[in-house]
Amino acid sequence: MPIVRIEMWAGRTQAQKRELARVITEAMVNIAQTTPEATIIIFEDIPKENWAQGGVLASDQ
Amino acid sequence: MPIVRIEMWAGRTQAQKRELARVITEAMVNIAQTTPEATIIIFEDIPKENWAQGGVLASDQ
Amino acid sequence: MPIVRIEMWAGRTQAQKRELARVITEAMVNIAQTTPEATIIIFEDIPKENWAQGGVLASDQ
Amino acid sequence: MPIVRIEMWAGRTQAQKRELARVITEAMVNIAQTTPEATIIIFEDIPKENWAQGGVLASDQ
Amino acid sequence: MPIVRIEMWAGRTQAQKRELARVITEAMVNIAQTTPEATIIIFEDIPKENWAQGGVLASDQ
Amino acid sequence: MPIVRIEMWAGRTQAQKRELARVITEAMVNIAQTTPEATIIIFEDIPKENWAQGGVLASDQ
Repeated sequence: MPIVRIEMWAGRTQAQKRELARVITEAMVNIAQTTPEATIIIFEDIPKENWAQGGVLASDQ
Repeated sequence: MPIVRIEMWAGRTQAQKRELARVITEAMVNIAQTTPEATIIIFEDIPKENWAQGGVLASDQ
Repeated sequence: MPIVRIEMWAGRTQAQKRELARVITEAMVNIAQTTPEATIIIFEDIPKENWAQGGVLASDQ
Repeated sequence: MPIVRIEMWAGRTQAQKRELARVITEAMVNIAQTTPEATIIIFEDIPKENWAQGGVLASDQ
Repeated sequence: MPIVRIEMWAGRTQAQKRELARVITEAMVNIAQTTPEATIIIFEDIPKENWAQGGVLASDQ
Repeated sequence: MPIVRIEMWAGRTQAQKRELARVITEAMVNIAQTTPEATIIIFEDIPKENWAQGGVLASDQ
């Protein structure tokens, strides 16, 4: 605890995930008074054909 | 907001997802008083070997 | 299967949820070739102080 | 109902998922007073590059 | 890791959750080769008016 | 898109959530090349009796 789950479109690089993991863990520790070891971050890569906004798939926009 | 998340077995076509996105967004706008732009729909395709009911994997049934 | 999860701001009425359940189940059956009995819908009411967009809590906007 | 969702690192075998589905369904039925048929279990395989703890991706550890 | 999330209707007792946590953690350790300390279990209590099957809210059935 | 979901034990203040929303949105924009407006953050407050680690409910530890 805490668990942070980040849904983004597929295509972010490992370098971006590595940096997000570092910075968001730091924010959780500083602001929410937890420890780095207790902070879990999970990324979910969503393909554009599995995401819609305004009633239209992102892969059709 | 709102966010609608639809878990289905893998195998639905893009045409089916496109139609679901259209119809469900319409339902959210008409019934829950939101806008199409504020309505996000995410599909998750679950393989049959990752789903169990009655204690048995769907891929074993 | 399928499972549909709908996150909305708290405040929608039972009548709205009842109608959403009916219409979205119907859409799943017609478009995704499932049965009503196999279609589960879960609503999650999110309070405005637990939701942010643009870096600002909805309760502050 | 109930729905049990299990996030594990990718790499568990079908035999392990089959056994987990059996044993956890049994636990739900015995302890939570439900039926096997009403108990749904979903596995999600998380690749190590999509998981961080202590601010570091599991694929970097 | 792993993370197990259990959605049930509201109304299960603390004793039931305590026993589920114990037995399911044991199953994860024995079958999925993890440790008790690495196994997180989260319960979500769903009120009957937030759950529908067959197009009908459980609170209406 | 993206959607960030943060599960923490109940008890964090509005001030802490406000600051987390601000800082994490900033991280998403800087690192994952999105916009503040496209970044949604949802907090979920988990009571200690709904969370277990090591097979024991946090409310029992």
